[in-house]
Amino acid sequence: MKMKKFINDPGTLTDELLEGYGLAASELVEVNGHLVISRALAGADRVTIVTMGGSGHEPAQAGFVGDGMLDIQVVGDVFSAPSPQSVLEAVQLADKGHGVLLLVLNHAGDMLCANMAMKMAQKADVNVRKVVTQEDISNAPRSNSDDRRGLAGAIPLYHIAAAACKEGKSLDEVAALAQRYADSMATIAVAARSATHPANGESFGDLGDDDMEVGMGQHGEGGGGRQPMKTSKETIGIMAGALVNDIPLKSGDKCFVMVNGSGATTLMEMFILYKDCVRYLESLGIEVVANMVGEILTVQEQAGFQLNIAKWDDEFLRLWNEPAHTFSFFREKVRA
Amino acid sequence: MKMKKFINDPGTLTDELLEGYGLAASELVEVNGHLVISRALAGADRVTIVTMGGSGHEPAQAGFVGDGMLDIQVVGDVFSAPSPQSVLEAVQLADKGHGVLLLVLNHAGDMLCANMAMKMAQKADVNVRKVVTQEDISNAPRSNSDDRRGLAGAIPLYHIAAAACKEGKSLDEVAALAQRYADSMATIAVAARSATHPANGESFGDLGDDDMEVGMGQHGEGGGGRQPMKTSKETIGIMAGALVNDIPLKSGDKCFVMVNGSGATTLMEMFILYKDCVRYLESLGIEVVANMVGEILTVQEQAGFQLNIAKWDDEFLRLWNEPAHTFSFFREKVRA
Repeated sequence: MKMKKFINDPGTLTDELLEGYGLAASELVEVNGHLVISRALAGADRVTIVTMGGSGHEPAQAGFVGDGMLDIQVVGDVFSAPSPQSVLEAVQLADKGHGVLLLVLNHAGDMLCANMAMKMAQKADVNVRKVVTQEDISNAPRSNSDDRRGLAGAIPLYHIAAAACKEGKSLDEVAALAQRYADSMATIAVAARSATHPANGESFGDLGDDDMEVGMGQHGEGGGGRQPMKTSKETIGIMAGALVNDIPLKSGDKCFVMVNGSGATTLMEMFILYKDCVRYLESLGIEVVANMVGEILTVQEQAGFQLNIAKWDDEFLRLWNEPAHTFSFFREKVRA
Repeated sequence: MKMKKFINDPGTLTDELLEGYGLAASELVEVNGHLVISRALAGADRVTIVTMGGSGHEPAQAGFVGDGMLDIQVVGDVFSAPSPQSVLEAVQLADKGHGVLLLVLNHAGDMLCANMAMKMAQKADVNVRKVVTQEDISNAPRSNSDDRRGLAGAIPLYHIAAAACKEGKSLDEVAALAQRYADSMATIAVAARSATHPANGESFGDLGDDDMEVGMGQHGEGGGGRQPMKTSKETIGIMAGALVNDIPLKSGDKCFVMVNGSGATTLMEMFILYKDCVRYLESLGIEVVANMVGEILTVQEQAGFQLNIAKWDDEFLRLWNEPAHTFSFFREKVRA
């Protein structure tokens, strides 16, 4: 059985996709090796933001580099962390004299790389603060959040932190805001059909013809929630219910909702899921004030989605409404 | 075998997805029954644009309603044309005294509906012009283009025509521009894995474990090009070669390239395909001056893509560089 992907050489996947991305988004980014650099960085006089993570999850994270979002994304090979040396290089390049916020999703390889890069940056006298997102409720309780994986909830944080940078906030202030955001959210994933690893052609698992699995993590690590396929409303009831309890949210609260398609789940389904989530939260007296619906952080052609909910206050909403212009996320200044 | 889609009731798919879309994009559109209406229409004093087409192809076409693109999209049921009555209603609602451009993709049901709606509009004394896109090179020669299906090449035309409307061009001028754009482009589709109909659960076909099919059309109608799965470069060579010959393009020409994912093809693959297409055209002395890469007009979770190439001149590029703000397409004003 052939791998049914339109690629050339499994050994050059990341180089080739980055070359294509650099050509497609040349107005917004410059691709330099495995660094994706915002064109907005050149004139920046503020705190800047660097992220890192493996390829294979497109558009994340390179698709979110640009004005009002990320300054540099350091890209690793497929599902792999980049080298600490390349993260150090990015942080040095990003520093405009106000310091750099390094945002990391909690996965073992990324954390190892980020911690080494932080040590190297301190030796090199670069002013860097690291904030980790770890919001997957499926593999550890909130009291043990160091064991929680980082999922798609990091993406809206990129814009909110970047908007704070553009307002002239200090590195300490931006880092505190980012940490507060990370603490305010929760995510859970579900898969209905597994994906194929694009480099070695291996399947990530087999969910059979009738089942879905809740709590899959980012790469299909699994979390024990295998059960018969359910309707949108039933699935949202299970997932949103768990998130509301975890955060926790109560009647009168305002929140952000993201439905992040894993790859083969249609936008048609995502709109239905989003509607069912809004209505579910409404029934609890919780208001949805902002959203992202689409393919944001994917797992190749996996069918399924991540549901992310964050408790928002006026500061998060105000920063969210600032402009952004990247390949995969765009906001115009919202007029009062 | 269960249908592995997150839906509730096959009978209310379109209503439910439109409700979700209206909630997710409430800043940009108002959903009124099966009409998706741009918030920018209220203050419009210009020629306006109406389109129509079945659901199940999200984000097309409802995702392209908004400032600098469509004024109203009339949504049919899954893969079905809407009613002529609803198209008439949309055209009457859209008319701001300067006339309405009705853009239609060449599919039998859509054409039947559009032709009836045009007759009704003429009776009702609404000033409407219809332009049809029909650019699928797989099922008829250019000399017999009435038999060619309309594919994703219509989407960039929406923005170019809308930018001309905003410049104050007359309905005759905008219609002539749209026709000139329709004549300047060509599209070909390939599928590697079929999709499932979301309402009845039936598969669109079986391409086996090793094959792909070039010339699939929009709904898997097929075109006879079944062959073993090929690399990105080989596939682009076949498809772009056929488009270049059809348009035709020659050394020194400028063009637009779209890689439109059908559903389960990753953005990783689309970037690699786009890069290979740019390099292929460069080898022929043809320059790519603009692009769209992503899921634009999908076929549920079909794996595959449409490759669209259009020969561009300075007028198309100038209009393309005007701003647009929709759920699925945005451009900022390009600074000289």
